[in-house]
Amino acid sequence: MKMSGGVEWALHCCVVLTAARQPVPAVRLAELHDVSASYLAKQLQGLSRAGLVQSVQGQSGGYLLTRAPELITVLDVVEAVDGPRPAFVCTEIRQRGPLATPAESCLVPCAISRAMTAADAAWRAALRAVTIADLARDVTSDYGPDTFAGIRGWLAAADGHA
Amino acid sequence: MKMSGGVEWALHCCVVLTAARQPVPAVRLAELHDVSASYLAKQLQGLSRAGLVQSVQGQSGGYLLTRAPELITVLDVVEAVDGPRPAFVCTEIRQRGPLATPAESCLVPCAISRAMTAADAAWRAALRAVTIADLARDVTSDYGPDTFAGIRGWLAAADGHA
Repeated sequence: MKMSGGVEWALHCCVVLTAARQPVPAVRLAELHDVSASYLAKQLQGLSRAGLVQSVQGQSGGYLLTRAPELITVLDVVEAVDGPRPAFVCTEIRQRGPLATPAESCLVPCAISRAMTAADAAWRAALRAVTIADLARDVTSDYGPDTFAGIRGWLAAADGHA
Repeated sequence: MKMSGGVEWALHCCVVLTAARQPVPAVRLAELHDVSASYLAKQLQGLSRAGLVQSVQGQSGGYLLTRAPELITVLDVVEAVDGPRPAFVCTEIRQRGPLATPAESCLVPCAISRAMTAADAAWRAALRAVTIADLARDVTSDYGPDTFAGIRGWLAAADGHA
């Protein structure tokens, strides 16, 4: 099973955007993360489509979170970039072959599908339990109280607001 | 995020093998599931490498579960076919760019990686909580008490034991 690598970049961008006082251009987020701007733009478009960030147009334009980081979960970001579909797709194998179960007897998902759905729900619940604000708090706790001030300073310097 | 489609076939095979009194040839499992034998053989090889099924050689050879279905979890089968690696791979983005965290300060995984690892653990715990015996019981409960007798009869007919 594999998740899009874009999820990791998108989560880092959201955490960084908690420090932003002004819209942050995509190219600046790319520079901060040392990744190609076009690759990051794709992830930011995913976040924008999902309503997690907004793109502000104009000379001092860029990206901002659309709401408080307490209200954006890790699951929101994962689904924005990687899609909302479960990893397991039931192809109704029970309806195939010489002992096929007739379609009219397949009103509930099969036992295998149910087990997979329950695991998927547990995974999503765990991702829903963590917000971008939690991640930002963990970052401060990991690297010290000045971490976000440093990021804010770097972003402002680029804006000419240093 | 996407899981190998082989997981679904492998789980169906394991459930069917709980009904087997004799080794079941791969080609017979493929016929029962109406899928190409070469495709199914690949999944069975994965199960065999993981020690979940054994291949019995000879004229009445085929596949058998290596242990009681109570002792084979859905997670065992998922990992046998899809590999044991988590869907999320941390690429240490924090060590990149102008504000990079020095490698020597990255002794514990970053907050994003920790959140993903916790969700992965919840997913695996849910899959570990369900055994092949549970699935077989659910199948009986869904389709009636004669379901496995029917499968056993079909498998035995092929063996010439009907």
